[in-house]
Amino acid sequence: MAAPLAPTVAVIGGGQLARMMAEPAAALGIPLRLLAEAEGVSAAQVVPDHEVGDYTDLDTLRRVTEGCAVVTFDHEHVPTDHLHALEGSLAVRPGPEALVHAQDKAVMRRRLVELGVPCPRHAVVADVADVEAFGLPCVLKTTRGGYDGKGVWFVATAEEAAAVFVEAAEQGRTILAEERVDFRRELSALVARSPSGQLAVWPVVASTQRDGICHEVVAPAPDLDPELAVEAQQAAIRIAGELGVTGVLAVELFETRDGRILVNELAMRPHNTGHWTQDGAVTSQFENHLRAVLDLPLGAPDARAPWTVMVNILGGAHDTGRLYDGYPHAMARDPRLRVHLYGKELRPGRKVGHVNAYGDDLEDCLERARHAAAWFAGDLGEESE
Amino acid sequence: MAAPLAPTVAVIGGGQLARMMAEPAAALGIPLRLLAEAEGVSAAQVVPDHEVGDYTDLDTLRRVTEGCAVVTFDHEHVPTDHLHALEGSLAVRPGPEALVHAQDKAVMRRRLVELGVPCPRHAVVADVADVEAFGLPCVLKTTRGGYDGKGVWFVATAEEAAAVFVEAAEQGRTILAEERVDFRRELSALVARSPSGQLAVWPVVASTQRDGICHEVVAPAPDLDPELAVEAQQAAIRIAGELGVTGVLAVELFETRDGRILVNELAMRPHNTGHWTQDGAVTSQFENHLRAVLDLPLGAPDARAPWTVMVNILGGAHDTGRLYDGYPHAMARDPRLRVHLYGKELRPGRKVGHVNAYGDDLEDCLERARHAAAWFAGDLGEESE
Repeated sequence: MAAPLAPTVAVIGGGQLARMMAEPAAALGIPLRLLAEAEGVSAAQVVPDHEVGDYTDLDTLRRVTEGCAVVTFDHEHVPTDHLHALEGSLAVRPGPEALVHAQDKAVMRRRLVELGVPCPRHAVVADVADVEAFGLPCVLKTTRGGYDGKGVWFVATAEEAAAVFVEAAEQGRTILAEERVDFRRELSALVARSPSGQLAVWPVVASTQRDGICHEVVAPAPDLDPELAVEAQQAAIRIAGELGVTGVLAVELFETRDGRILVNELAMRPHNTGHWTQDGAVTSQFENHLRAVLDLPLGAPDARAPWTVMVNILGGAHDTGRLYDGYPHAMARDPRLRVHLYGKELRPGRKVGHVNAYGDDLEDCLERARHAAAWFAGDLGEESE
Repeated sequence: MAAPLAPTVAVIGGGQLARMMAEPAAALGIPLRLLAEAEGVSAAQVVPDHEVGDYTDLDTLRRVTEGCAVVTFDHEHVPTDHLHALEGSLAVRPGPEALVHAQDKAVMRRRLVELGVPCPRHAVVADVADVEAFGLPCVLKTTRGGYDGKGVWFVATAEEAAAVFVEAAEQGRTILAEERVDFRRELSALVARSPSGQLAVWPVVASTQRDGICHEVVAPAPDLDPELAVEAQQAAIRIAGELGVTGVLAVELFETRDGRILVNELAMRPHNTGHWTQDGAVTSQFENHLRAVLDLPLGAPDARAPWTVMVNILGGAHDTGRLYDGYPHAMARDPRLRVHLYGKELRPGRKVGHVNAYGDDLEDCLERARHAAAWFAGDLGEESE
């Protein structure tokens, strides 16, 4: 193969986020090189230049990034030390100094408090006595390694807390206690930041979780106080800048019933709450992530429609889901529906795709996206039509 | 790799049209298998499951399509006999009976005349005397194998016609004479048709050629008489149905100065005059081509903006073109610009990419797209800003 015409971007992790980076990479003529967990995983299906290997192995990381201009990530699980080691050879974006805030919740909380960003009340807890001193009921989280509701426990009693410590001790995990926030809903503020310091800020969205997994996103967040929207965006801008984030930063927020916002989580990569941008914004989060890590000027983040609704396709309790086989109904029922499948088989609780519906009428978008996602997941029979 | 979750689509030809099919294929979870002309060609850069081989070799075609549900094409150059032979094993879309009308201009003219579709005056000519009888000046075309202005000659004298016959005889080509149409402009009517007979009809666009290569497309065609627009769309619908086209059909038309339309060319694949749909329509021609060849319901072809302008990036006379290196200026100047590069090196006259600009103001879209394309091609210095 001839020398590439543009710098190659290494992507660590072969999940759907890497897969969805491949679409704008192809359009922009940017070659990707992928480190995949196994042959045939989501992104490996669409990125020719891929290798299968272990992202916790530094030699593997060195080999796959050799000759690349920059390395970025499908997930936040690459050991921080390895990222520091790679920095001698190529640009690591986001860099380890920033990424640690998305890897370690205790580090993240400490830094956000220093910055004066509003957070839920929290404390690192070493035992049940610490939890009781913090106050029950509360939320316990492992500081590292949690995702999609894993590593998070809602505990009401000392017994429940004790069980968490048994589990965490087995895995050598540190535990963070946080207050249970009485929230009205969850919001997400998504920004992309380039090393040069340019920012692209998408509209603030409302997200709904189901069993700890992002399920539905409405862009923009309906009836959001404009001042609160600006506050959420400013928080994301401030965090991105102070932490030196490069690429996409998602700031997941609680909107409290008394009209405040509190930062829940940070993610430094394209995020589920930004999937609506693929069809609903001038520039998608996946394209701007690539632009940002290459320090190219960012694309406009404006919405292209008054409303965009994203609903995830999650494997349901039933065994009646359908993916490709669901196309005839879903596509014929709604010719404007945008479908994104990840090349994964349906399994209970697994994210296998999402749909976007955009338009002028929020109720219509909600109905279309919910119907399609339920149809694919098997949560709906044809008789429901 | 596990068994694919959706039927595999074989694509013959590794050019940019196949490359741009890969984006919606990834989104829809549809695996592609590619037959590429050489390692590293445009589509082979983004389709993992590819083989390098000769599309005029039936054994190669059989091998690459084995296990696929359907085969479709990046170009129209696969021998008709081979397509018939493949039909025993899998669906060939478009099929050979339809495709021959895009492969052979004499067959196409004969059929369109039978259908009563308005065409320029034409005749198959065997020698200079035939051309003189037809009338000079005229246009001579090889009936097979021409593209992007190749295989087309504008002749004014018997001497010029004689030179064409010398060249054509060397290549064993048949020659078609056509009147030189006094056209106001060129239009294109793009439709997708599924085997079940569903149609998606995009707005009629105006296209401008430069040296026989599509250079600029405006969607929709400005100031087009609505009756003429319907006439153009009806012609495309009629041709697609009567010829049994499956996939995208582009009908290139002349709009004459006296307000008629005449069919110039047919293409049965995604077409340069449809590249605007990637950013300007609800469903792109590439996605609907895939849906159509799989006999899935088609996506809505409506425009998403009042105007979309596409300008091709063509290698210029100068050696000052830039592709990736042109991004900092192009992207910073116009954050709403949509860039599509094909992974090809710049060479004089070669199509290496295109840009789309959409918006409410046609002049603004024209200026943005023209500026960016000229910038990439090297036809513009920074001092022109």
